Amino acid sequence: MTLLNETHDPSLRSWVDSANQEGCDFPIQNLPFAVFCRQDEENAMRGGVAIGDQVLDLAALQRLRPFIGLAAEALEAASQPYLNLLMSMGPSAWSALRLALSRALREGAEDAEAFAQCLVPMAEVRYDLPCVIGDYTDFYSSIHHATAVGKLFRPDNPLLPNYKWVPIGYHGRASSIDVSGQAFHRPQGQVKAPDAAEPSLAPSRRLDYELEMGILVGTGNELGAPISMTQAEDQIFGLCLLNDWSARDLQAWEYQPLGPFLAKSFASTISPWIVTLEALAPFRQAFTRPEGDPAPLPYLDSEHNRAQGALDIELECCLQTAGMAEQGLAPQQLARSNFRHSYWTPAQMVTHHSVNGCNLMPGDLLGTGTQSGPLPEEAGSLLELTQGGKQPLKLDNGEERLFLEDGDTVVMRGFCEAPGAVRIGFGEVRGTVLPARRREGE
Amino acid sequence: MTLLNETHDPSLRSWVDSANQEGCDFPIQNLPFAVFCRQDEENAMRGGVAIGDQVLDLAALQRLRPFIGLAAEALEAASQPYLNLLMSMGPSAWSALRLALSRALREGAEDAEAFAQCLVPMAEVRYDLPCVIGDYTDFYSSIHHATAVGKLFRPDNPLLPNYKWVPIGYHGRASSIDVSGQAFHRPQGQVKAPDAAEPSLAPSRRLDYELEMGILVGTGNELGAPISMTQAEDQIFGLCLLNDWSARDLQAWEYQPLGPFLAKSFASTISPWIVTLEALAPFRQAFTRPEGDPAPLPYLDSEHNRAQGALDIELECCLQTAGMAEQGLAPQQLARSNFRHSYWTPAQMVTHHSVNGCNLMPGDLLGTGTQSGPLPEEAGSLLELTQGGKQPLKLDNGEERLFLEDGDTVVMRGFCEAPGAVRIGFGEVRGTVLPARRREGE
Repeated sequence: MTLLNETHDPSLRSWVDSANQEGCDFPIQNLPFAVFCRQDEENAMRGGVAIGDQVLDLAALQRLRPFIGLAAEALEAASQPYLNLLMSMGPSAWSALRLALSRALREGAEDAEAFAQCLVPMAEVRYDLPCVIGDYTDFYSSIHHATAVGKLFRPDNPLLPNYKWVPIGYHGRASSIDVSGQAFHRPQGQVKAPDAAEPSLAPSRRLDYELEMGILVGTGNELGAPISMTQAEDQIFGLCLLNDWSARDLQAWEYQPLGPFLAKSFASTISPWIVTLEALAPFRQAFTRPEGDPAPLPYLDSEHNRAQGALDIELECCLQTAGMAEQGLAPQQLARSNFRHSYWTPAQMVTHHSVNGCNLMPGDLLGTGTQSGPLPEEAGSLLELTQGGKQPLKLDNGEERLFLEDGDTVVMRGFCEAPGAVRIGFGEVRGTVLPARRREGE
Repeated sequence: MTLLNETHDPSLRSWVDSANQEGCDFPIQNLPFAVFCRQDEENAMRGGVAIGDQVLDLAALQRLRPFIGLAAEALEAASQPYLNLLMSMGPSAWSALRLALSRALREGAEDAEAFAQCLVPMAEVRYDLPCVIGDYTDFYSSIHHATAVGKLFRPDNPLLPNYKWVPIGYHGRASSIDVSGQAFHRPQGQVKAPDAAEPSLAPSRRLDYELEMGILVGTGNELGAPISMTQAEDQIFGLCLLNDWSARDLQAWEYQPLGPFLAKSFASTISPWIVTLEALAPFRQAFTRPEGDPAPLPYLDSEHNRAQGALDIELECCLQTAGMAEQGLAPQQLARSNFRHSYWTPAQMVTHHSVNGCNLMPGDLLGTGTQSGPLPEEAGSLLELTQGGKQPLKLDNGEERLFLEDGDTVVMRGFCEAPGAVRIGFGEVRGTVLPARRREGE
């Protein structure tokens, strides 16, 4: 488990000026990892760390051999085109690298001039997935989302009996995950209107986003060796933003009895920057349950988790329609929420996932499920904001939405603030809906 | 789509004598692929082809540079520690390699003496997974299984309304798939008896096997580019046997509303040998639906699929208890079934999977779901054979089973027979249940 250390010191400032600006997502206290290259490069993906409006090129840094010991080993791993090796090295390696980077980027750092040669402006880079994602699991950890969605299907009985006991999750599709900027064709699939005699193949008309966090697994576990709550946080490399696009009409027709399938597997988008669990240490909160709710079963409980298992991460979801883009309007905020409302903590998700012996691997992605807050306006999906597609959402430019239209771009952001800590951010995850592809013969 | 050619000629015989014996799984008409090494070798996995009771070492063969053109390229890919590259090359490469191997292994082949140096007795090898399995999807394609299981939950309404329209499937866990010989600890998880006030953590007491086929994806498709029925069979590299172990009690408590999760992700076992779709050409059958059932939607229909989309693969499932092993008794057959009963063909599964644009990747595994036949004794799981764990199954040695006990070994086999064709087999997939691991503090 991660404690506060010198890298969190709020008085630290970087020799990269932009990192010291108020409201910057990437001050020296953050130091998230991504995989990137310059926009004009091919086959040159490598690890990078965000600092202000710059990316510190870890492959370039590595060539300077600036660190020794574990930090040097971790830097070498982090300079690769995928971060799986870094992720597999565990918290002491991550922590050594973070400390070395923090010292290298601080005001007054000895070799700042040499390190400055390793900076690339963010405006000039493109990103790739930070790692090979072997398996993707999506949880359902917001009780507010589960209740709101449950109400649409079962008004009298919105929450199923297992919800408060089991961190509900399901296996997702790894191949269709891409990094921020993903543009995908509106999926087609079988849909059946309640009054239709038969289903038909059609482009989804109830296309939605889901505002989620993604948890990137670090070292992982051997098959058959469950991860206990005391080990769980050491298994988490970091968190990112995740938009788990969903086709609600496909889902309604296909999901019984084995769960969502094609309604989810056409695209999922994550932010490029992985904020380490260590960077999130100042934003931990007590994990509590509403009065009267059952305590987690012992295998999902620990004193540490109760004391500081929750993470205070403010989330927002914005929409920019094609019309807004044409008019030069910025994305409009649809909702805000916060990951601290989650009914299960990241540690509980990791522990539950492996309790049957299932092996988690470095780079595996755990989605938290849609993070809706307790208030209706804190809903993390259009399904909730429009009451199941019945109440149009009025946008500032006069447009309306029940679900996503072609040309819509969804932008999600996340950041952390706490008294006595420097604000850190996740950057953004952005994705765009393209029109459905025409089928052969159309 | 694969037609009969000289490699299927029933009069072909191999200079490897054991391949010509009646009832052999691996005659020269089969030529399935696996990844193997000698039992005493480390870090030496490479591709192999089964011939009689021997494995043709493709890395050794490759060093002889016996082929030219596409067959040579395919052989190089097939000699790697994973077959993903071979799988990505597509049907013309697979077919060229098969033809070259068939000619090399035939009676009278010119360089038989040199090739014989590349044989390793099966008795002396161990296997690994044939490929990196990026994503694993499990379908539910036996209407007999779906009906039998549905009856246990909903006696009056066993089959859900979508079943005859949608090839129902769900994302599975890739990391816990292993090759035949897998021994795994009985999974623990949350269980809740109907009359219990609260769930508890316990080892599964309703551990089951599922008799399935696995479909290995070949070339795959780009994200956003669905695979049509006319392209679908060219995407299939081959088939294997799959035991999709299931913890029924974990499943009952966790599966609403998002489907099976930990009830499945603790272990899945596949056979080492992948029988190519080309080898299965003589065992194709017409794909028909029972009178009165709806025709597949046009995107899941093709003349070729109707004429010969089904595969006649005889399946059997056997159990060897620890007691039987001690008494020197062979595994006892519990059930036989046949993949031709499947309500959906492999081509339909591939096409449906990608209709939303989901990208299939070389080496992805599609499970067919439990292949129960129309008769009760053709059930592919204990859940069905014991009527939901109520009717004990009496074994020949006097033991009884409702579900699997510690020490039980499940062995599944598959083979194809047809008039005018030489019988080919899949070998076996074998797995063993170990006792639950003790938890910390027990």
